[in-house]
Amino acid sequence: MTAPIAAIILAAGKGTRMKSDTHKVLHPIAGRPMLLHLIHSVAALEPARTIVVVGAGREQVEAAVHPLGVETVEQVEQLGTAHAVLEAKPALDGFEGDVLVLFGDVPRVGAGTLARMLERLHAEDAPATVALGFRPADPGAYGRVIADSEGRIDRIVEFKDASPEERAVTLCNSGLFAARAADLFDLLAKVGNDNAAGEYYLPDIVTVAASAGRHSAVIEVPAAEVAGINSRGELAAVEAEWQRDRRARAMAEGATLIAPETVWFAYDTRLGRDVLIEPNVFFGPGVEIADRVTVHAFSHIEGATIASGAVVGPYARLRPGTVLGEDAKVGNFVETKKAVLGKGAKANHLTYLGDAEVGAGANIGAGTITCNYDGFFKYRTNIGAGAFIGSNSALVAPVTIGRDATVAAGSVITRDVEPGALALSRARQEAKPGWGTRFREVMKARKAAK
Amino acid sequence: MTAPIAAIILAAGKGTRMKSDTHKVLHPIAGRPMLLHLIHSVAALEPARTIVVVGAGREQVEAAVHPLGVETVEQVEQLGTAHAVLEAKPALDGFEGDVLVLFGDVPRVGAGTLARMLERLHAEDAPATVALGFRPADPGAYGRVIADSEGRIDRIVEFKDASPEERAVTLCNSGLFAARAADLFDLLAKVGNDNAAGEYYLPDIVTVAASAGRHSAVIEVPAAEVAGINSRGELAAVEAEWQRDRRARAMAEGATLIAPETVWFAYDTRLGRDVLIEPNVFFGPGVEIADRVTVHAFSHIEGATIASGAVVGPYARLRPGTVLGEDAKVGNFVETKKAVLGKGAKANHLTYLGDAEVGAGANIGAGTITCNYDGFFKYRTNIGAGAFIGSNSALVAPVTIGRDATVAAGSVITRDVEPGALALSRARQEAKPGWGTRFREVMKARKAAK
Amino acid sequence: MTAPIAAIILAAGKGTRMKSDTHKVLHPIAGRPMLLHLIHSVAALEPARTIVVVGAGREQVEAAVHPLGVETVEQVEQLGTAHAVLEAKPALDGFEGDVLVLFGDVPRVGAGTLARMLERLHAEDAPATVALGFRPADPGAYGRVIADSEGRIDRIVEFKDASPEERAVTLCNSGLFAARAADLFDLLAKVGNDNAAGEYYLPDIVTVAASAGRHSAVIEVPAAEVAGINSRGELAAVEAEWQRDRRARAMAEGATLIAPETVWFAYDTRLGRDVLIEPNVFFGPGVEIADRVTVHAFSHIEGATIASGAVVGPYARLRPGTVLGEDAKVGNFVETKKAVLGKGAKANHLTYLGDAEVGAGANIGAGTITCNYDGFFKYRTNIGAGAFIGSNSALVAPVTIGRDATVAAGSVITRDVEPGALALSRARQEAKPGWGTRFREVMKARKAAK
Repeated sequence: MTAPIAAIILAAGKGTRMKSDTHKVLHPIAGRPMLLHLIHSVAALEPARTIVVVGAGREQVEAAVHPLGVETVEQVEQLGTAHAVLEAKPALDGFEGDVLVLFGDVPRVGAGTLARMLERLHAEDAPATVALGFRPADPGAYGRVIADSEGRIDRIVEFKDASPEERAVTLCNSGLFAARAADLFDLLAKVGNDNAAGEYYLPDIVTVAASAGRHSAVIEVPAAEVAGINSRGELAAVEAEWQRDRRARAMAEGATLIAPETVWFAYDTRLGRDVLIEPNVFFGPGVEIADRVTVHAFSHIEGATIASGAVVGPYARLRPGTVLGEDAKVGNFVETKKAVLGKGAKANHLTYLGDAEVGAGANIGAGTITCNYDGFFKYRTNIGAGAFIGSNSALVAPVTIGRDATVAAGSVITRDVEPGALALSRARQEAKPGWGTRFREVMKARKAAK
Repeated sequence: MTAPIAAIILAAGKGTRMKSDTHKVLHPIAGRPMLLHLIHSVAALEPARTIVVVGAGREQVEAAVHPLGVETVEQVEQLGTAHAVLEAKPALDGFEGDVLVLFGDVPRVGAGTLARMLERLHAEDAPATVALGFRPADPGAYGRVIADSEGRIDRIVEFKDASPEERAVTLCNSGLFAARAADLFDLLAKVGNDNAAGEYYLPDIVTVAASAGRHSAVIEVPAAEVAGINSRGELAAVEAEWQRDRRARAMAEGATLIAPETVWFAYDTRLGRDVLIEPNVFFGPGVEIADRVTVHAFSHIEGATIASGAVVGPYARLRPGTVLGEDAKVGNFVETKKAVLGKGAKANHLTYLGDAEVGAGANIGAGTITCNYDGFFKYRTNIGAGAFIGSNSALVAPVTIGRDATVAAGSVITRDVEPGALALSRARQEAKPGWGTRFREVMKARKAAK
Repeated sequence: MTAPIAAIILAAGKGTRMKSDTHKVLHPIAGRPMLLHLIHSVAALEPARTIVVVGAGREQVEAAVHPLGVETVEQVEQLGTAHAVLEAKPALDGFEGDVLVLFGDVPRVGAGTLARMLERLHAEDAPATVALGFRPADPGAYGRVIADSEGRIDRIVEFKDASPEERAVTLCNSGLFAARAADLFDLLAKVGNDNAAGEYYLPDIVTVAASAGRHSAVIEVPAAEVAGINSRGELAAVEAEWQRDRRARAMAEGATLIAPETVWFAYDTRLGRDVLIEPNVFFGPGVEIADRVTVHAFSHIEGATIASGAVVGPYARLRPGTVLGEDAKVGNFVETKKAVLGKGAKANHLTYLGDAEVGAGANIGAGTITCNYDGFFKYRTNIGAGAFIGSNSALVAPVTIGRDATVAAGSVITRDVEPGALALSRARQEAKPGWGTRFREVMKARKAAK
């Protein structure tokens, strides 16, 4: 195929059933707005133009797609899908090539499928349009595609107009189409709105083409690929399907998931070989994990790069900007944010490392807190290689702990510590003999008196 | 319907298969004893009387239902379900109205179904009793209801007595009945125990009525609504079904559940619109969440009221008495109990807030602990609006931190801090140059010597 | 059966599809290598000999099985399953008894099934070999077992050689066999490799026996019991099946699992009666839980013994060597390791107890850390019965806190505390009036200037 490609993505619907202030097509799947999943698939075809037709909530959609170089056109009145596609005609004035008509709320269509649609468009029999069909478990009220075994469409019938024989057909119409630009706009111009809703329907281009003696074709994809999202329930179903596919891929590529159904990936998670993931791990966007990493249960990881041999969790929360070196360990109830840990560095328990650099082999004791915030600004903590931070210490940033230095347990460190030194800030331990016993007696009496 | 209503709930069984010291009907579903789910459904009909027939473990059941104004009668001998219902007769002496016979271990019957049973009872054909039928996936050994298309029952046959044709019937008998009080006790008086087990069976009232020339009727409900609970496996199955329904409702009402199958609601959880719930969130009883709240993964929330825009978790544990103001944040590894946070207040990491009031906009540093307990009594901590509590601080209650005050990191605060003041309790930081290096040398040698 | 038993377990395959540096048969199910599950089942028959045939990665396999007294023989060339079994012949020189031929990657075959195979071998009709058959949901390309209703095998046909009628047979060949040693090696010696792959196939012993006028028999097991593991996806599927069975058993024995599908047991987890397990609990190996224990959500438990009435979690991480006494409590964000808690002792929040003994009734305040590690060695902390450790304290081991002693909040304890005494190490609280207000003004100005 050498024809240039334009994609028109319809996203003007109100999405009332979502009951949300967020535009329907911006609800995320695997941590990325559904519309961006679709735009990403389209981008793989290197389209000359990608145009999103917006309507209600256009500001939200435009804010999401303009940074990607994707154009928008507005559909002011909601007169039906054929009308919506026509709104993109002025923007495509002079464009000679193929057009894909897609829906922002049908986000899982893959680049391979889009390529197949275009390929079919340019097949020898030269169809006027190419529809995308599927066979749902329950065809219900979908429009039926009546086609021969070569995929030449005889007609597409709305369910309500379908005869019993037509209703028995299981091939349904997804609503997505491909057509040459000239054909598409010609056909659309002839689509009428003589129906109960008074709307201009996109699939009517098949009928219009047939009237002009031109046939359309259909190619078929699995139903999951054209699942539409109109409610939060359908959103969750598509998310589940996406996750199922991703988990299967992770295992096929050499990761062990003890309970795959409890691991959630983001759209861009990258995993090495011989990675072990225990149950209940959540990946937000921006995670890259090298070989032989173990992620224990109940970990929550986003924006983190983890080198080979590292061990994470259980109950580790790695936030954006976390970089773990080889064989580094981040253990239970530890939070990291913009924290870089060197090879073999360890923060095993109850620790907060924010805006921190931790050198190779350093050991961060349980209960250590980097005090990186004064209510107004953030400051950095530098901990040298081989340093040992005693438990329950507070490191008040900006502060540097030198290489091989030791901080005594319970210290509050406000000034830099020289390499190889011991730092401590500690009040003398005092004893009040018998105080504990007397206190218990007094309090027991008081409790009894109540 | 204007007849008064009485409900008789059978709960005298031993529940041996639960293998539990807790009475079977008190095992909880969604955080509430199953019997109370049923009593709650009954209560929607505003019954004149609700009577639970108790037997083994009656003290436990009475302790649970008496506070609700529900009566109990004892079935001393276990002579069958018909006998159990008869035990309630004296208590209903003089009662003229309709009686519903229910089972404490069949807890998901809804108020709508109960109303339909009574409505059928008062239909033109005036049945003597109304049975509740269902069609299980596997009818197995259930008794079969032989009825015509209008739901007029010809007979109910036990599976073991059923002919092959009768066994082919898929409508099964749930055991629940409705009847006018006078009819019910008349019929019960004539039920015999001439069967293998020597028991008086409630469904025999249908046969007794038929002998007297009166027919019974059946109405049908989905099998899940009359699922009985006799084992922990069945308890888990009913819990799962309850949760599935509740999650679907949450999504329909405008909450996003990324992985609905990993969110557990309590019977009384209330959720606003545009609430986002990440995977693995557990709600105990008493939670109310307003609009636009985000609940991150791995949160455990009970007895908490959360205002709009607040952000919770991941790994937040909100215990009873927690109130979060608008846009407040409670982050990872933070526990709150009887803690009220004002608008925009933040406790982002590794903190315990117990018996505390936190003013609007206050910032609680990582590792802060309110020391609210001395081993005998609990005390309160008050933190003023705009206050800044440095990391790893201990606030020894009772104590008040004034508005816009600052507590330095690592402090132990035992006395009140004035508004706008700085409080600190900190030993001077000392340095022992070279100590870290020497310590490492000594210890390495000692380790090598081992 | 009085014949001695030998088990030959084939484990020489490369397991390429696992994409792992770990040998396929060492990938764990429920925390134990799959091969050891199988060896454990075999051990229940008290075999005279257990021989694992190893090949690629033999060192890993030998390191896992030699400590159990299991022998290995090497298959240097991979010439097929019949050839692999023959490799064990020299090791069994002189052995007179029954041989079971098993596969290291078919690990869920139970001892009962193995016993049934041997029983069938010694049945009156004296079959030469006994095959293990199953009926998968999709028979696909499995070899079909053509047998009569008494389980006498007519033939076993490879799928590719099977006629349509044979393919319609749903009984498939698992590949596992039992035979008398003398028969087995006789038959194997006559198996040829005249096939497309040039391999010696074990099931050909059935044909060889038939040629010699001896029949074989088949017994049938559920498909799940002979599920083979060739990929991480199949590993996860077998793990899921194992967990499903184990959860059902836990419930049948009297534990409540609110969401059974989110509880993961190890192969050796032991649970008492009236144990309540909330959603999302992970058990590693070595856990024993007594009656009436509650395990709240999000707990991670391994190597722990928990006495009756104890309460664990949510978010408790119990590591090996943890022993909780009756009614002890370990709460949220608490980690224990080699920690023994006496009756009624409590560590409710944000605590690390490592290498510690905690006496009965002691109360460990929130944020307490036992500082058990100096970067080189570990040291012990002893806390007496009835002691009260104030919040945010650091106990620097080795250290002993006496019975009924009190440690003040925020203390760093480096020296022993006498029984009944109060210990504290605390700097005086100072106040700088107005400092907080001035700081806010300065910083606000600085922020505005940015």
